[in-house]
Amino acid sequence: MHEEPEVAVLRYGHRPGRDDRMTTHVGLTARALGADRVILPDNASQSRATVADITDRFGGPFEVEQTAELDATIDRWSGAVVHLTMYGERVQDVAGDIRQRHRSEPLLIVVGGEKVPFEVYDAADWNVAVTNQPHSEVAGLAVFLDRLFEGRELAQEWEDAENRVVPQASGKRVVDGDGAADES
Amino acid sequence: MHEEPEVAVLRYGHRPGRDDRMTTHVGLTARALGADRVILPDNASQSRATVADITDRFGGPFEVEQTAELDATIDRWSGAVVHLTMYGERVQDVAGDIRQRHRSEPLLIVVGGEKVPFEVYDAADWNVAVTNQPHSEVAGLAVFLDRLFEGRELAQEWEDAENRVVPQASGKRVVDGDGAADES
Repeated sequence: MHEEPEVAVLRYGHRPGRDDRMTTHVGLTARALGADRVILPDNASQSRATVADITDRFGGPFEVEQTAELDATIDRWSGAVVHLTMYGERVQDVAGDIRQRHRSEPLLIVVGGEKVPFEVYDAADWNVAVTNQPHSEVAGLAVFLDRLFEGRELAQEWEDAENRVVPQASGKRVVDGDGAADES
Repeated sequence: MHEEPEVAVLRYGHRPGRDDRMTTHVGLTARALGADRVILPDNASQSRATVADITDRFGGPFEVEQTAELDATIDRWSGAVVHLTMYGERVQDVAGDIRQRHRSEPLLIVVGGEKVPFEVYDAADWNVAVTNQPHSEVAGLAVFLDRLFEGRELAQEWEDAENRVVPQASGKRVVDGDGAADES
């Protein structure tokens, strides 16, 4: 989060149409759970627009970018690189070392689509598995970020929000930027 | 998990085609992160087949079911009901109470699709938000389960698996049921 070295999430691979929602959810999860920035493939413009719109309405700081150079983004990264994969080391075994490294260095978290080449496994400082079971790259990213930030991300403040949701035991309460409430 | 009172996940709502991957990811995340069972809507047969196939190959115990009666599943549940929603109470504030209740009672976790009626908010014992920000029902479920089980789910053993992934610092290693390895 925002006083610490940067955490960026790189969505590696995207098939327009088929992956739109997954890529959007990767971006929204990165934002909600404490990353500073998400970098999407250049063919994921629809997901980029959705994440930017949510940031406009619900606040930041959070950046969404696109790149045509996924591999170069990894190779040129000044800091540590984590690749999330079901084949990797167990998150519970390596999260402490990664947190330690992130105290002094920016962190790039690579979240795969369907096919990730071996070069990414080799380029990563850590290949990390949130369970060695097949499930969801969105779920893996969420648990990884929650453990990286040790829950601090759940209490973060949002700046320049048009809408703010007020926690409720039942029903919905949204306050706008002027403090007016829309309850239901 | 399996010596404790049951944890079931109910996917509330599904639009065939559009929601297939999200519903599949809800089911796979429920399985990988310690739930005992997922209950899908009756129109989510494709997601059911995928989750059942993964369970056959990567092990159980885990059950996948379908129902035409989403509301009745909630109303007839013998135990506690948690509804995950961005409008709810903060997970960091209520997880302890929910864990306490789950020590003696089965838990039903309701994961919404696009539209969840107010009756579900009223029927739930807890409406719980994994951040009050819009992101992903898959991410919310993942963080909720990891906090419910306090990480114990990451070390669970899988029975009757045809394939077992062996954690690796780099590359992929999968062992089959006979102990033979397929490395790459």
